[in-house]
Amino acid sequence: MFGETLRNIEKKGPVVHNITNYVTVNDCANIVIAAKASPIMSDDAGEVEEITAICGALNINIGTLNANTVPSMFAAGKKSNELGHPVVLDPVGAGASKLRTETAKGLIEKVKFSVIRGNMSEIKVLATGIGAARGVDVSKDDVVDADGLGAAVRFAADFSKKTGAVIAITGATDIVASGEKAYIIKNGHPMMANITGSGCMLSAMTAAYIAANPDNILEAAAAAVCAMGICGERAVKRMTERDGNSSYRNYLIDEVYNLTPEILDSESKFEIMYFDK
Amino acid sequence: MFGETLRNIEKKGPVVHNITNYVTVNDCANIVIAAKASPIMSDDAGEVEEITAICGALNINIGTLNANTVPSMFAAGKKSNELGHPVVLDPVGAGASKLRTETAKGLIEKVKFSVIRGNMSEIKVLATGIGAARGVDVSKDDVVDADGLGAAVRFAADFSKKTGAVIAITGATDIVASGEKAYIIKNGHPMMANITGSGCMLSAMTAAYIAANPDNILEAAAAAVCAMGICGERAVKRMTERDGNSSYRNYLIDEVYNLTPEILDSESKFEIMYFDK
Amino acid sequence: MFGETLRNIEKKGPVVHNITNYVTVNDCANIVIAAKASPIMSDDAGEVEEITAICGALNINIGTLNANTVPSMFAAGKKSNELGHPVVLDPVGAGASKLRTETAKGLIEKVKFSVIRGNMSEIKVLATGIGAARGVDVSKDDVVDADGLGAAVRFAADFSKKTGAVIAITGATDIVASGEKAYIIKNGHPMMANITGSGCMLSAMTAAYIAANPDNILEAAAAAVCAMGICGERAVKRMTERDGNSSYRNYLIDEVYNLTPEILDSESKFEIMYFDK
Repeated sequence: MFGETLRNIEKKGPVVHNITNYVTVNDCANIVIAAKASPIMSDDAGEVEEITAICGALNINIGTLNANTVPSMFAAGKKSNELGHPVVLDPVGAGASKLRTETAKGLIEKVKFSVIRGNMSEIKVLATGIGAARGVDVSKDDVVDADGLGAAVRFAADFSKKTGAVIAITGATDIVASGEKAYIIKNGHPMMANITGSGCMLSAMTAAYIAANPDNILEAAAAAVCAMGICGERAVKRMTERDGNSSYRNYLIDEVYNLTPEILDSESKFEIMYFDK
Repeated sequence: MFGETLRNIEKKGPVVHNITNYVTVNDCANIVIAAKASPIMSDDAGEVEEITAICGALNINIGTLNANTVPSMFAAGKKSNELGHPVVLDPVGAGASKLRTETAKGLIEKVKFSVIRGNMSEIKVLATGIGAARGVDVSKDDVVDADGLGAAVRFAADFSKKTGAVIAITGATDIVASGEKAYIIKNGHPMMANITGSGCMLSAMTAAYIAANPDNILEAAAAAVCAMGICGERAVKRMTERDGNSSYRNYLIDEVYNLTPEILDSESKFEIMYFDK
Repeated sequence: MFGETLRNIEKKGPVVHNITNYVTVNDCANIVIAAKASPIMSDDAGEVEEITAICGALNINIGTLNANTVPSMFAAGKKSNELGHPVVLDPVGAGASKLRTETAKGLIEKVKFSVIRGNMSEIKVLATGIGAARGVDVSKDDVVDADGLGAAVRFAADFSKKTGAVIAITGATDIVASGEKAYIIKNGHPMMANITGSGCMLSAMTAAYIAANPDNILEAAAAAVCAMGICGERAVKRMTERDGNSSYRNYLIDEVYNLTPEILDSESKFEIMYFDK
């Protein structure tokens, strides 16, 4: 099922516009290429509208946001909306500062996002105004365990209804939800938390998946999350005793490069939940 | 022949000033070190003239340009010209936005470049004002095939005459041309297009080559292009089944690190073409 | 002895705020994670005070400083001082431009640093106003040899007394000194100079060490320097014939990831020197 979404990237080779942080930008560019799409990074107000116009999707990531790039995020988001391009928001560190929280909230108000992807702390802050952000990592209180899963899925679906965006909450278990349907994804590996940028890379890759599957945003976003998780698992198997997080990062991107539609279909682990309208 | 240009870098250990994008900047720094030179990255208008004054060459790369860095590019370029330092321009994404096209054109007007290196789409936009940029990658219509090679070489030589810069158009076949003489280079591997930054890295490395060979810009630029291509070929040979583009990037820089003047001499594949004056 | 400082990071998992350059920022983030702490990168004046308030230490690195980030460095530094958080300064390229020298000097005047870490050229410029900076690398005249070691240690101790900060001067031999006591550290490998960012990474890692050991800054800083040196040595042993500086960078971070308190205790090589008060 998900294999088809990757086949569409291979077929169309979409260009993805990224307004993203300078910490993980190189990894984001390489993973977009690994996912068979083309990245372009651009964040100056003088060009973002033009750049986004020639792309198939936009990925807005607020890590290392600044006074110059925030207006570019709004401008590019609005332009993408006008053109009907799918847009991803990665609210990195929402809750850690007013600037991040308000920028993310403002963006959600002014821009129609196709997908909002973050950890539970970030999404909670945006949905409820309350949150216990611990930098850019998920707060311990917000980790979703088996008992809390049902409530977390319902929470994601409600926030999806409110925003009109597919909500992807990633962690040990990943939730990808629209208002009517949710994917509960069991792929992934704890090692993914030991590198910087696994979230950022997933958001950039999600933009590639939805760019090539614009009429099927929920499935495309779920496919991207499964793809990342599968590659995270496969990359761990490649590690030798001397390897650490830096080699793991390379292996992870390598696995995305080598991922096929067949692997994506056969190794995806998820359940689907439907909601009453 | 080209081995000598690398020997000169080893001998002189030039410092290369880079005003470059934040996507591939780390790779650019590491490849400059791998090429036996020293990188310094600096883009604030408050220091670029001083920084460039203590360097042996300047590399201006307009990827992720912004309102703050554009004036720095002009200031550093002019200062380098005053001091007689060689300067490289990498017009990343020229044609993709007015800001990029006009910045690149303005730089060519105000700064005397030693080398301008880009893909055919970027160089075409600068030379003719017309182009079909597809983000930061070459447009399909602009790929140079065997039939079009003669015209492409002539085009590069004409643009060299107009600008006074050596023109390096890189792709499946690379062209490095002055108004009188051109190198047509067959080194390289398609895998190089599967990482972000192979162009940026080449431009930074070209700055290292011309910094150490300022009286021999055409040969030094051609040597850098051959060096990159040779390393691209050798890096592919090192790949195992599980490797993808991230490991390839590491191998590519590793090969530059291990490149010797002897390898550069023996594995360079090029033809030379002379033009009537 | 130093093993305990690493155990404290594992126990406390501090968050480290980095205002750092975009060249080596990804490596800094990954090495902070490898050292069992959490990084957050943030440099906008609109949020740095809030961000630093939720962190356990601040690392200010002036590489690629600009007009927007310099005020953020002052604001975050002052806020950290108010809150009693330890702060590291990495004066990258001090001496290479007035902007860098004056920013570093101004920071030392207005912010109380716990640790100042640089190469001898950078520290000399800050301590004496005189220096022969050669870009971001140490000047040949400033390399500390066996004959000059005693004087260099005394110089570091004097600058420590003047600034109130532990002074870490890293090179072939590393010096970590307070006004009363100095560690002369023999760990490390020349290969560390063949990658960009070994200094930046050490500064970020030092912030992690002192965040978890705030009552023991001198030992924690010396432990960080030993840790980096040990990992630099171990990473070299992993290199194969085809590896170069890019693979080495990965191995170095991997070794930090795999470093245990036991290895840190058993492989640290240092002498201690005491000064009369």
